[in-house]
Amino acid sequence: MPRYDAPIRDMQFIFHDVLALQNYSNLEGFSDATPDIVDQILETGGKFASEVLFPLNKVGDAQGCKRAEDASVKTPDGFPDAYKQFVENGWPLLSKTPEMGGQGLPNALSIAISEMMSSANMAFAMYPGLTSGAYEALMAGGSDEQKQKYGPKMATGEWAGTMNLTEPQCGTDLGLIKTKAVPQEDGSYKITGQKIWISGGEQDLTDNIVHLVLARIEGAPEGIKGISLFVVPKYMVKEDGSLGERNALSCGGLEEKMGIHGNATCVMNYDGATGWLVGDEHKGMRTMFVMMNEARLGVGLQGLAQAEVAYQNAADFARERLQSRALTGPAAPDKPADPIIVHPDVRRLLMDTKSFVEGGRLFTYWTALHGDLLHKSPDEKMKEKAGDYMALMTPVVKAFLTDRGLKACNDALQLHGGTGFTREQGVEQFVRDVRIALIYEGTNGIQALDLVGRKLAANGGRAVFTFFAEMDDFIGQHEGNEEMKPFVEGLSQAKAELQDATTWLMQNGMSNFNNAGAASTDYLHLFGLTALGFMWAKMAEAALEKRGDDPFYDDKLVTGRYYMSRILPETAAHLAKLKTGAEPLMALEADRF
Amino acid sequence: MPRYDAPIRDMQFIFHDVLALQNYSNLEGFSDATPDIVDQILETGGKFASEVLFPLNKVGDAQGCKRAEDASVKTPDGFPDAYKQFVENGWPLLSKTPEMGGQGLPNALSIAISEMMSSANMAFAMYPGLTSGAYEALMAGGSDEQKQKYGPKMATGEWAGTMNLTEPQCGTDLGLIKTKAVPQEDGSYKITGQKIWISGGEQDLTDNIVHLVLARIEGAPEGIKGISLFVVPKYMVKEDGSLGERNALSCGGLEEKMGIHGNATCVMNYDGATGWLVGDEHKGMRTMFVMMNEARLGVGLQGLAQAEVAYQNAADFARERLQSRALTGPAAPDKPADPIIVHPDVRRLLMDTKSFVEGGRLFTYWTALHGDLLHKSPDEKMKEKAGDYMALMTPVVKAFLTDRGLKACNDALQLHGGTGFTREQGVEQFVRDVRIALIYEGTNGIQALDLVGRKLAANGGRAVFTFFAEMDDFIGQHEGNEEMKPFVEGLSQAKAELQDATTWLMQNGMSNFNNAGAASTDYLHLFGLTALGFMWAKMAEAALEKRGDDPFYDDKLVTGRYYMSRILPETAAHLAKLKTGAEPLMALEADRF
Repeated sequence: MPRYDAPIRDMQFIFHDVLALQNYSNLEGFSDATPDIVDQILETGGKFASEVLFPLNKVGDAQGCKRAEDASVKTPDGFPDAYKQFVENGWPLLSKTPEMGGQGLPNALSIAISEMMSSANMAFAMYPGLTSGAYEALMAGGSDEQKQKYGPKMATGEWAGTMNLTEPQCGTDLGLIKTKAVPQEDGSYKITGQKIWISGGEQDLTDNIVHLVLARIEGAPEGIKGISLFVVPKYMVKEDGSLGERNALSCGGLEEKMGIHGNATCVMNYDGATGWLVGDEHKGMRTMFVMMNEARLGVGLQGLAQAEVAYQNAADFARERLQSRALTGPAAPDKPADPIIVHPDVRRLLMDTKSFVEGGRLFTYWTALHGDLLHKSPDEKMKEKAGDYMALMTPVVKAFLTDRGLKACNDALQLHGGTGFTREQGVEQFVRDVRIALIYEGTNGIQALDLVGRKLAANGGRAVFTFFAEMDDFIGQHEGNEEMKPFVEGLSQAKAELQDATTWLMQNGMSNFNNAGAASTDYLHLFGLTALGFMWAKMAEAALEKRGDDPFYDDKLVTGRYYMSRILPETAAHLAKLKTGAEPLMALEADRF
Repeated sequence: MPRYDAPIRDMQFIFHDVLALQNYSNLEGFSDATPDIVDQILETGGKFASEVLFPLNKVGDAQGCKRAEDASVKTPDGFPDAYKQFVENGWPLLSKTPEMGGQGLPNALSIAISEMMSSANMAFAMYPGLTSGAYEALMAGGSDEQKQKYGPKMATGEWAGTMNLTEPQCGTDLGLIKTKAVPQEDGSYKITGQKIWISGGEQDLTDNIVHLVLARIEGAPEGIKGISLFVVPKYMVKEDGSLGERNALSCGGLEEKMGIHGNATCVMNYDGATGWLVGDEHKGMRTMFVMMNEARLGVGLQGLAQAEVAYQNAADFARERLQSRALTGPAAPDKPADPIIVHPDVRRLLMDTKSFVEGGRLFTYWTALHGDLLHKSPDEKMKEKAGDYMALMTPVVKAFLTDRGLKACNDALQLHGGTGFTREQGVEQFVRDVRIALIYEGTNGIQALDLVGRKLAANGGRAVFTFFAEMDDFIGQHEGNEEMKPFVEGLSQAKAELQDATTWLMQNGMSNFNNAGAASTDYLHLFGLTALGFMWAKMAEAALEKRGDDPFYDDKLVTGRYYMSRILPETAAHLAKLKTGAEPLMALEADRF
């Protein structure tokens, strides 16, 4: 039977040994994140994920969500009860601000809990994930009144939040939005239009749903500069905080999808629904980006999380499935055949994912820590760097971890052979569920364009040059250290290639934007591979320092060396491809495809 | 709405310009394959695939197969009628031997029709695909009586065939088979046991099903050397060819799967069923390999075929979907946005697949042509080479084309954005359907082991050295030709790397078999990339020769140059990875994964 066990030991290694949260105790909230508290949170969160959420994962896939004739939506059996426990246990409050009733712990820690929930049940975890994004957007862009009205209930998870961007004619290009907002005398707006692919647009988990909706105020400028953001609750909220009448919005249908069946993907109809402007007129995208950045880190995490659970089950299968003999002679002569984990090519499937997941985990948590530093550090220089890194790394976390996460899930399925293709076994669900993560919150191609078109160029390339300098420093510090050699050498090589690619982009991408577009995905992967190389070098440093009787640290070094020798060499192909420029891509006429 | 149009022009290019079937008119059956006849067959086959099979593809996915209480199995609506047309039109007879009523045309041509059917409806095409494999096995290993009894009806497709290998405890390792065969006085055997994952094990398409079943005769040696092959018909066949009583076998259940829902994947129970030995006692694997080789080419073709249909729909979407503006300024200023095909990164998704599919198509047809030459050439030297190539290329066709085929289907889904994740659109079905092709008929990992462990070493490496020499000859012929330069240079580089890897394997794989295992998948991909590089070089040669007013040939050259500059550079990473040897893979203890 499939299982999920939270990788607590690995998370502890990251928090205690690599990121060393304890060293930030001068920052708000960090002083409460003592190693003991961190361990306790990880243990409890892992237990909840394994025991409550994971058993509902297959149920959710098999049952899906159902829309009744009255347009209400029923989530799969067990989801409402699990959600109730989730709220009662206070999980959503972990890193929320104390002003809204939160515990104010570092977001980096909250990310670990999100990872567990996403591994255990991605479709379930999306409900609170989107609530959290909507909450952050309201905190960033909402008025004090709006924050007070919706904030505390969204912080606890008693109310949910959604993001309403997409319409049939516009996904990536939000300038094409048609949903209308008509100003009313009381300062509110009447919202009319249809939104599609709204995750959790309707459900039976929460008393209220706070929709954030992009719409165009009558007479607004064309395109993206005429888009405003509105808060549109399912039920009106009275002065005293109690729920009033039902708003004029409803779920018009559920999308049938490849995966994440447990999450209700809704067509949402707004029929003159009452909404209130969030932030300034025509500046809706600014606030929406707050929400999207938060969400993008979360989506990258989904790629990682599904890879982790797929890996665990593949490793179990590889140890248990008896089939054929080791190439070097029987390893279990007393059994009818050897466990397939004796085969190098089976181990390749496992080691590819193990080295990806552990490197990707640090990359995500490290990026999230920069988010904490951005908000909480008193040091202006540190804040600047943290903001730069958050901006630079977010598209890489989103796209690289989901592209690789899909590969990892497919590899886990592959390791299972025919069994993996059956619904019963369960691993094929991970492949179907994770697939959406390459698409939503901006397709991976859009992430790559964001990276090369916006993030690299910002402030004259300050962010990426800081990153190069940090890697150079690290390399300088460890040169000559024999045990660090494979890490330092691999990182130096990859970093040189990334720098080469960056220079190429700066020289060729500005003169012909198509060169930047043609290079974007290869550049993003070159970046991701290098960043994980840096993460592995940092982990090796920590493991060498801590190494003692605990074989955990030796395993880390083995896994890290695998990454450096068997994954990192992929950088060269990306460099060669991107340097071809746009011509090979643009040469064919559109009608000749 | 999704569509499938058979790529007839590309197939004509391969048959007329590259393989030049007309030059083999001295061989049996080839003289009937004049360009006119070939064109006519392609046209008619394409029409059948697009108009009859493709519309049933979604129906099959949505309905799946149903098993009734009496253990009969109902295929999706429309399948029986389409199958009837398929038989009546004589498609299965195309390349079957005239002795069995076939037309005796080259198998290479038959492969093109199989590709069309697999593109249009993979689940449907599997029924005749397996029949064809079973037929070939009977032709290769059966007695004259068995051939006469089953051959003609299987050749027409009136009766189906299946292969029964897998049991719950054995997939790859057929030595673990437990199904028993007990000899009877009349020379028949009573077969008892359970087989799983039997494609088309039961269905409502044909009057009879001829099961080929691997089983162990009582008292047989342990392991693979005690496995015999039996023919076990669903209905007994009387002396006069009419059907007699029902055999003691039945479908015990249908597997719920990730994809190919229209194909019935059966648990087959043999309860003392009557069967007859095919070939010699304990030598069943030899004949089964005939069947598997045939089947493996067909599976590689499925990877290609699903990539083709996914590509066609992605190209349509890219031309039609209006979203954002070209990076270099509006391309369709009169429209609200530009079609997304203006974007280099969207074109990357298309060009990757276009260059893969066209190269892979020639690779498959060229390999199939060697199969024809093996059987029909009067020239002993040619026969030897053809046999060598068939053996060497088959695992590469199977694994490389399905690995890449999955990537292509995923890329097509990705290009569709959120739409691609919906069931309604249809592209996600291609991803789910093609997924099995990486697994069945020997997982891709097993193909890689077959390549490095068996095929490379056979006859002192004769096959691979012949292949190297053929590429060297080609390179020598075209050196100095300016227009061939990108092809000659790319091929030279890739071929040198493949040769380097081959030498490394010969030096390191024999002393430690785990080195061969650890290198196997990277070696196979390096091989596949190089082989497609060679195919592209051959296509460039033909296109340059034929180039005139038809833009088809210019497009070929553009697509070929794309392959050489943006795909082929991946070889270097495979070489670097495989040269690390087994240590990085074997270092971790099994319980530390």
